[in-house]
Amino acid sequence: MDYENRFRQHLESLHQEGRYRVFADLKRRCGAFPVADHFTESGTRDVAVWCSNDYLGMSQHPTVRAAMHEAIDAVGAGSGGTRNISGTTHYHVELEQELADLHNKEAALLFTSAYIANDATLSTLTRLIPGLQIFSDEKNHARSRASGMAAGPSHIFRHNDLEHLECFLQSVPLDTPKLIAFESVYSMDGHIAPIGEVCDLADKYNALTYLDEVHAVGLYGPRGGGIAELEGVMDRVDIINGTLAKGFGVMGGYIAASRACCDAIRSYAPGFIFTTSLAPAVAAGALASIRHLKRSDVERTRHRERVQTLKTMLADVGLPVMDNPSHIVPVMIGDPVHCKAVTDTLLTQYGIYVQPINYPTVPRGTERMRLTPSPVHSDAQMAYLVGALSELWAACPVANGQYVRLAAE
Amino acid sequence: MDYENRFRQHLESLHQEGRYRVFADLKRRCGAFPVADHFTESGTRDVAVWCSNDYLGMSQHPTVRAAMHEAIDAVGAGSGGTRNISGTTHYHVELEQELADLHNKEAALLFTSAYIANDATLSTLTRLIPGLQIFSDEKNHARSRASGMAAGPSHIFRHNDLEHLECFLQSVPLDTPKLIAFESVYSMDGHIAPIGEVCDLADKYNALTYLDEVHAVGLYGPRGGGIAELEGVMDRVDIINGTLAKGFGVMGGYIAASRACCDAIRSYAPGFIFTTSLAPAVAAGALASIRHLKRSDVERTRHRERVQTLKTMLADVGLPVMDNPSHIVPVMIGDPVHCKAVTDTLLTQYGIYVQPINYPTVPRGTERMRLTPSPVHSDAQMAYLVGALSELWAACPVANGQYVRLAAE
Repeated sequence: MDYENRFRQHLESLHQEGRYRVFADLKRRCGAFPVADHFTESGTRDVAVWCSNDYLGMSQHPTVRAAMHEAIDAVGAGSGGTRNISGTTHYHVELEQELADLHNKEAALLFTSAYIANDATLSTLTRLIPGLQIFSDEKNHARSRASGMAAGPSHIFRHNDLEHLECFLQSVPLDTPKLIAFESVYSMDGHIAPIGEVCDLADKYNALTYLDEVHAVGLYGPRGGGIAELEGVMDRVDIINGTLAKGFGVMGGYIAASRACCDAIRSYAPGFIFTTSLAPAVAAGALASIRHLKRSDVERTRHRERVQTLKTMLADVGLPVMDNPSHIVPVMIGDPVHCKAVTDTLLTQYGIYVQPINYPTVPRGTERMRLTPSPVHSDAQMAYLVGALSELWAACPVANGQYVRLAAE
Repeated sequence: MDYENRFRQHLESLHQEGRYRVFADLKRRCGAFPVADHFTESGTRDVAVWCSNDYLGMSQHPTVRAAMHEAIDAVGAGSGGTRNISGTTHYHVELEQELADLHNKEAALLFTSAYIANDATLSTLTRLIPGLQIFSDEKNHARSRASGMAAGPSHIFRHNDLEHLECFLQSVPLDTPKLIAFESVYSMDGHIAPIGEVCDLADKYNALTYLDEVHAVGLYGPRGGGIAELEGVMDRVDIINGTLAKGFGVMGGYIAASRACCDAIRSYAPGFIFTTSLAPAVAAGALASIRHLKRSDVERTRHRERVQTLKTMLADVGLPVMDNPSHIVPVMIGDPVHCKAVTDTLLTQYGIYVQPINYPTVPRGTERMRLTPSPVHSDAQMAYLVGALSELWAACPVANGQYVRLAAE
């Protein structure tokens, strides 16, 4: 058994499929977002970042940065322990209270990422509730699907298809424990789930509801509580999964739920118990960001306007922007090699950074660019982006469903 | 199905066993470690922290804090994306290079925690190498055991028992892919693994070696590379798993291995792909900490002296300190209710904070205090601790193998 050779074979297959990932080495400039330094072998140059999930630019907000500075000077860098063994700081306690309040739940529980929040919660629920059946939307983020399947028996229903979900729910006895896992904003298509209707089905079939709001918290609702807050159905969802790393601009993840539910996950989930807690400065920064976005609607209003402006500009020049009701702006390409060639050209020739989105993040054949305009992307930057895309599309038209390839391919 | 009731039943069973965990709400004071504010319902008071994994006090090192401040002002709070989608900053790139150099490996890969580094790496190796058999030390940290078992077929060998490990290795055909997962310093007993001898067996039976050095990096070896560096066997280990949250004082985890191995995990592990990268300030702080501890031996020397001093002081007054060759100082209690009563009394009556260590972190019947003296724990603080423990042991002697219970129990 030649292990090294095995690893190289797996890498070679990614190269052959055109989906080997090369990370862009960036250094965003505080105060100048979306501008960043891009480090390359031939030196450093300016790029405009068009694919950040720092949706509202909160990572550079003065209040967030000040809170982080304060925490570093007050208590230092790391927490020094798991939550149980000396790693619960007052910042963590306050942040969990703030998150519970944000979602109008009894409690919240912090994790080092939304990925591990999701994985730890679903797998622990399966252990605590033997026989728990999980009903999962087919477009749930790969991370949710992976957890769901590891967690136990799964029923994958068609995306946002209430009838298909109900078919599955009916197929299981009423007294069998159930959980419906779905997302409010689907991150790659920008679709929004019919949360209230899913909760109606949950009531009818006595299922727990688990709603992933990672692409919505901070962005939607009068206080940034997400789509469930916007639609007035937050109280109908049992467990809300959120992130501190996107709309709130810092890092970390959480769940918000009943006191007993959070306490049970806190007490039984290895992914919670055996991890050093978030750095105090990270918790302090997230706390400041949430508090700001609970009161301020300026960022959300400006964000909506910027998103609509970009969608309109793209559609006006005939670019294949996918229609959706959210802040995600997918521009479809449909081929991994072409997708990478387009984004490479944008980066090297135009100083525009958009990461190609390929399988397994999206299904094969639906490769795309995923643009995320923020409140600080200017009209001029949008015009420059749309102009660059138009030039590329003119150079590589679609003929008979196939892209005419760029020379670089 | 009453879900809330089910959660409450699980919590009630923890209360009945005496192992319901209550987190101490702390705020360490930068520059005054191990002193911290302890927030309680009746107000805030001073405590000395005796159970932190900030082993060297690096979380409060001026160089680490300065690096974090610099990064926050340079680029902001969060990275804004996964490593692939705009979340690779120059800090991450430099940190991975620094970690590869620390362990003298071709490459390293960052994760948001050592827990997820471990979980993602082992589960992905199992997918990339079909039929991979995992041989795991029985005392591997619960997090490793959980991952190992989720990852695939496991053989649990007796703690540090080379003959038992070899029995298992012999039981599998030579050409079956194998991985031996073990730790350098076992966190709860402080034992140290015979790394070289395990590697001999790995060579003989063509197994990959996976060494968890989370309780050793920064602390052991001329440059803080861990026990494998100290013993001159770093090049014989295939994959080293480390943390940035203990000896290095910040947060995050990593693996260091061959370029192909790290690249394969990078490319195939959902727990890596779908997570927002570490906050740039966290990466910058960790980078500064590693660089400092590569050059400076002052902290390690002082740490060894402090550990030996405390062990001697405890033994001199006849307290049941467990002998071991590492920096971990376990004081055995052997009963969860008594363990909690002792540590509650230390906290409320003496201002000494030591978290009780109960099942599932250690086996039932081996409940303990786990003391972690750092370079900044003074002689006076040690004398006060040993005096307090002596008073408690005098008040609650062991009679016929049973502790005479404290009034508080």
